[in-house]
Amino acid sequence: MIYLDNAASTRIHDDVLNSMLPYLKEQYGNPSSIHKQGRLTRKAVNKARKQIASIINADPAEILITSGGTESNNTALNGISSQFPSSHIITTSIEHDAVLEPCKKLSSKGFKVDYLPVDKFGMINTLDLENAISEKTSVVSVMFGNNEVGTIQPIQKIAKICHENQIIFHTDAVQAVGKIPVDVKELDVDLLSISSHKLHGPKGIGALYIKNGVKIDPMILGGGQEFRLRSGTENVANIVGFGQACEIAQNHLDENILWIKKLQSQLVKKVLDEIPQVTFNGHVDYRLANNAHFTFLGINGEDLIIKLDEYGIAASTGSACSVNTQKASHVLKSMGFSLEQITGSLRLTVGILNTENEINETVEILKKVIEELRAVSPFKEKYSFESKN
Amino acid sequence: MIYLDNAASTRIHDDVLNSMLPYLKEQYGNPSSIHKQGRLTRKAVNKARKQIASIINADPAEILITSGGTESNNTALNGISSQFPSSHIITTSIEHDAVLEPCKKLSSKGFKVDYLPVDKFGMINTLDLENAISEKTSVVSVMFGNNEVGTIQPIQKIAKICHENQIIFHTDAVQAVGKIPVDVKELDVDLLSISSHKLHGPKGIGALYIKNGVKIDPMILGGGQEFRLRSGTENVANIVGFGQACEIAQNHLDENILWIKKLQSQLVKKVLDEIPQVTFNGHVDYRLANNAHFTFLGINGEDLIIKLDEYGIAASTGSACSVNTQKASHVLKSMGFSLEQITGSLRLTVGILNTENEINETVEILKKVIEELRAVSPFKEKYSFESKN
Ligand SMILES: Cc1ncc(COP(=O)(O)O)c(C=O)c1O
Ligand SMILES: Cc1ncc(COP(=O)(O)O)c(C=O)c1O
Repeated sequence: MIYLDNAASTRIHDDVLNSMLPYLKEQYGNPSSIHKQGRLTRKAVNKARKQIASIINADPAEILITSGGTESNNTALNGISSQFPSSHIITTSIEHDAVLEPCKKLSSKGFKVDYLPVDKFGMINTLDLENAISEKTSVVSVMFGNNEVGTIQPIQKIAKICHENQIIFHTDAVQAVGKIPVDVKELDVDLLSISSHKLHGPKGIGALYIKNGVKIDPMILGGGQEFRLRSGTENVANIVGFGQACEIAQNHLDENILWIKKLQSQLVKKVLDEIPQVTFNGHVDYRLANNAHFTFLGINGEDLIIKLDEYGIAASTGSACSVNTQKASHVLKSMGFSLEQITGSLRLTVGILNTENEINETVEILKKVIEELRAVSPFKEKYSFESKN
Repeated sequence: MIYLDNAASTRIHDDVLNSMLPYLKEQYGNPSSIHKQGRLTRKAVNKARKQIASIINADPAEILITSGGTESNNTALNGISSQFPSSHIITTSIEHDAVLEPCKKLSSKGFKVDYLPVDKFGMINTLDLENAISEKTSVVSVMFGNNEVGTIQPIQKIAKICHENQIIFHTDAVQAVGKIPVDVKELDVDLLSISSHKLHGPKGIGALYIKNGVKIDPMILGGGQEFRLRSGTENVANIVGFGQACEIAQNHLDENILWIKKLQSQLVKKVLDEIPQVTFNGHVDYRLANNAHFTFLGINGEDLIIKLDEYGIAASTGSACSVNTQKASHVLKSMGFSLEQITGSLRLTVGILNTENEINETVEILKKVIEELRAVSPFKEKYSFESKN
């Protein structure tokens, strides 16, 4: 199996699993219990909170642990907007559904929501943001790195614009943290979402960074865990694993970036060199290093990934974090892609566990599969699919 | 270590952990991915949903998987009430904070919330419920088994009353499922909350049973997972473990009940026989078999559990699922206990892993510790603490 869907989810690091095991075995106390079993798991949660804080240069008290990136985004948007009823929210047209759907709900509740457009590389224009801001704007949410095409937005600049206008700024950094350096102090963001399973931690756990001084209304109420901002018995094992995954990712960030960048460059170069009628999408410079996004004209991306799957290659047409895989990508639409271009799209996201051989093998198989699919493509006549070698 | 805090959390069953391990190792696909890795985890989630459904005799399509009992309760209360703005909600004064706190929030948002009283055994009177119901009542939430004193409410009768009045009925069955038979069809409840870590499954995962036909508004929006009712990448490993824990609990329910009942009876009998000035609290007949709740006059329960902890016994003063362990129990207050009685309370909750020897040892240590604490008690003069043997 060649796994090239690391933006969808990643394999848990062996050391992460090892860190979790005691909390799946003999350390089963409830962190709210005052006896030793409780104190031990409380200590483990506190340690993990420090590890999570560290990877984004936050203080542990600024880390709210949630059940994942989706809950983090919902908590951020609802937690701010509820303090400013009927106010104005600005986001982008290329956000993950975990931002778009809460925004849609808020708009049905009397909030005005504006969606910033992006250019053909998936980049917003900060002038559009400045123009969209009004007296009523309470919160701006712009994602860090896009999950489909990998485009990285000018987060620091956006934060600055927001703060000049006394607006809270949230960024969905689910695809960025652990992949590129993210320093909340330097960026000066107010709220930032993280998800563990994107950085070789367990699924179903994440965090929301909340800058010291920023107030949010809690969504899930009860026993008062997580500074009263997120109740529920703590998912101790997953929290510990998430913390460990952050520590490992932080300690190996530079070498991981080099490796992933190397594999991605190799992949992109080979695909562009060896396969005809292909475009490489997204931004060339402002881009998550792990992301390679292509359009193969005349191809149906769904067919392509099913074929690749038969050859043991795990790939994606775009977002996998949605059950709507059949829906045409709203990200590519916003980038001005035609339906045909959207249909021919393939996302390959490399990870630290991939090898150069896997990349070579993938391109060989991809070449073959695309030739096969194009041979039976209804667009056969429209394009002349000559092989490049 | 003698663990007698099974109402706070339980040890993960070895077979549960074994069922989880593949999903913490090589099976890391995102269930929404269409490739094989995705299909395998999707299949695992589906299997677990069946196991969870089975333990309460529900259909798999009626099981919404959440991050735990707290989220389940919040989802139930918010998910119904949002459809009936400013309506009337009825609950009880002895609910877990995961019901009380969402109700408090709803009451601040214009809902009228009534809290049914309980008698000294922690039992509501269904006449009070009938009297409280009005034209405006939209939802009733009454817990199944109480987490502090173990009292079991007449759930079937409550459901009947609710349905005669076209009211949705939710029950927090976090302490009941896996401990006593719970059949949603027989009980005819509309919504029922479960938590995995109370039945030897992993923490941070739970479910909300939603009767076919009952509509709820989702709280967490995004990719549309869980029938669009709870978005977020699925916590596959914990879901699998939760399912396995349900299957094991269901298959061994009868023998587990016998064993737990035996240990609990032994514990209660010995404590009442051998320690003076003690009362056994809660209901004698309608009671979770694992729960033994006592009041030792003249004692501070916090001191008691700290002392027991020194002897390696994990116990609790009451709810551990709350960071408010210092707050005087609202459950005991509702049962009419004086502050002195509340202060002297101890909850011991036995589990399937406990042994008869552990119970004997516990009572010996308890006797000793209580004698020690009473010797320095400020209430020494008020009560004559003669030893019973
Ligand atoms: C950009 C982005 N935001 C949010 C999410 C949702 O996070 P989670 O999978 O932890 O629910 C994902 C992926 O799932 C994502 O790629
Ligand atoms: C009766 C009851 N309801 C709800 C909960 C909360 O469930 P969870 O611990 O899964 O958040 C608990 C215990 O924590 C409980 O005892």
